[in-house]
Amino acid sequence: MKFITFEKSDGRISAGWLIDDEHAVDMCEASGQRFPNNLLDFLNNSEEYLKQAKGCSLLPGQEGVYPLRELCIKAPLPNPRSFRDFYAFEQHVKTAREKRGLSVVPEWYKMPVFYFSNHLAISGPGDKISRPVNCCWLDYELEIACIIGKEGRDIPADQADEYVFGYCILNDWSARDLQREEMKVGLGPAKGKDFSTSIGPWIVTKDELEPLKEHGGFNLIMKARVNGILLSEGNLKDIYYTFGEMISRASQGVTLYPGEIIGSGTVGTGCILELGPEVHRWLEPGDLVELEIEGLGVLKNTIID
Amino acid sequence: MKFITFEKSDGRISAGWLIDDEHAVDMCEASGQRFPNNLLDFLNNSEEYLKQAKGCSLLPGQEGVYPLRELCIKAPLPNPRSFRDFYAFEQHVKTAREKRGLSVVPEWYKMPVFYFSNHLAISGPGDKISRPVNCCWLDYELEIACIIGKEGRDIPADQADEYVFGYCILNDWSARDLQREEMKVGLGPAKGKDFSTSIGPWIVTKDELEPLKEHGGFNLIMKARVNGILLSEGNLKDIYYTFGEMISRASQGVTLYPGEIIGSGTVGTGCILELGPEVHRWLEPGDLVELEIEGLGVLKNTIID
Repeated sequence: MKFITFEKSDGRISAGWLIDDEHAVDMCEASGQRFPNNLLDFLNNSEEYLKQAKGCSLLPGQEGVYPLRELCIKAPLPNPRSFRDFYAFEQHVKTAREKRGLSVVPEWYKMPVFYFSNHLAISGPGDKISRPVNCCWLDYELEIACIIGKEGRDIPADQADEYVFGYCILNDWSARDLQREEMKVGLGPAKGKDFSTSIGPWIVTKDELEPLKEHGGFNLIMKARVNGILLSEGNLKDIYYTFGEMISRASQGVTLYPGEIIGSGTVGTGCILELGPEVHRWLEPGDLVELEIEGLGVLKNTIID
Repeated sequence: MKFITFEKSDGRISAGWLIDDEHAVDMCEASGQRFPNNLLDFLNNSEEYLKQAKGCSLLPGQEGVYPLRELCIKAPLPNPRSFRDFYAFEQHVKTAREKRGLSVVPEWYKMPVFYFSNHLAISGPGDKISRPVNCCWLDYELEIACIIGKEGRDIPADQADEYVFGYCILNDWSARDLQREEMKVGLGPAKGKDFSTSIGPWIVTKDELEPLKEHGGFNLIMKARVNGILLSEGNLKDIYYTFGEMISRASQGVTLYPGEIIGSGTVGTGCILELGPEVHRWLEPGDLVELEIEGLGVLKNTIID
């Protein structure tokens, strides 16, 4: 199933799922409020709700079913509980460090490492992304996000799938000049990343990706285009650490809650920093950035000043 | 005023304020539910609620007023919206870097730098702190936290006070061995810090500290004791960056919301890492750690396995 959050023509925000390529269900309205009107509350009880949702057979024309063209699709989970971003693709780490004359540290191969970013600055499909006023080196990052659907602690990697609700595309917008400066102090990225993270267009439940599993990852082509020009192309199966390993690491001695987001880190070639500004200049107001992952849709955003 | 969150003898959690050294108000009960039963909802409308709260005159014996000894005091804000931790005391940065053979980078003097930590792992006064299973170098960090009480964006440093609700003691528990290893990868601290952060015992509203303002900071002695032995002693007035400057930095291009926490970073001498394990061994199960800041109370926690 594909879960979305949307604004209706009357301005109200609600959530639900797609029933085909052109129609979506407002789950709260269609169920006489048996389902909540937002995805975070759905996730808080996702095992039970998902079972019920799968049992619903709704058709275009029924109450609470809307043509997609009448809805404005928002970030599927506009209010995640937290956002951890990992660094799990070897090629990205290698190339990004080479650019700074550094090799990959041995610790990178020992454990998946992450940082917390700003979960209160989530944007969605179609949202305009403001370039920070003091940023000249604005970049996109092509990532996949995993949405936690069940509370857990000290989760073994091979049982982590049980705690996953689904996946979506994630664009970890990066102000490279701000990031480069602050990271010299040693606390990792903060202002270089905190102004916006885009997710969407929908969250695809894990069962839909099951047939594409390969070596603990998924065989899914990932692409990024800027103004229609293909700049990045990778495959999720090339990830070095599985989401199971990332969830295991995140949950060591820490409780994970439904609605937390785990980002994969950037796929190889998945940002301008890695390609080099000689391949493409930094992003500028007016640029259209499209991230596409097989089975997960296309996430489009335009840069503004 | 001093705001607290507490568990009553019937097991219910509520929030309110102290009316003297021995009595607290359950603000929801005492007001016939005019006030919410938790501090986050209070903060969401803090200007209006605080005005009303200041107008209340409640006495011991009245409905909703409890002797403190009948209450179990919890973290004053158990569910903050986020937690940013800064690095604003020069002496701590200098000594901590010297220990690793490094000097303070020039960027530290250019801007206050922070990282996001785990706002979903907040503990309170009296809570037992579990040493992470794979940690041998457990440390405390003596800090002060500022609680945001009003939404804002691009807040100038000299207007930041308007966005502050109050202050409390903060212990940024640190697993130094985990932190040292992961930080080599360059994303800052995560597992070294994510298992627990203690705050409390109460949040003191900014007006109470107003008379102690000095050079943009506050003249407040800060102390840490382990098993009764004084290990750390500093003064908040020695902070290099003011909370105004930190709030300004955090809010550049980013909206701050009520209930977000801004940590100061560790005061000089305020952790074992800085003192050196030759002055005191790392923390062990059974250790009692007490942080005290003038006017803000004492925050006590015991380490367990």
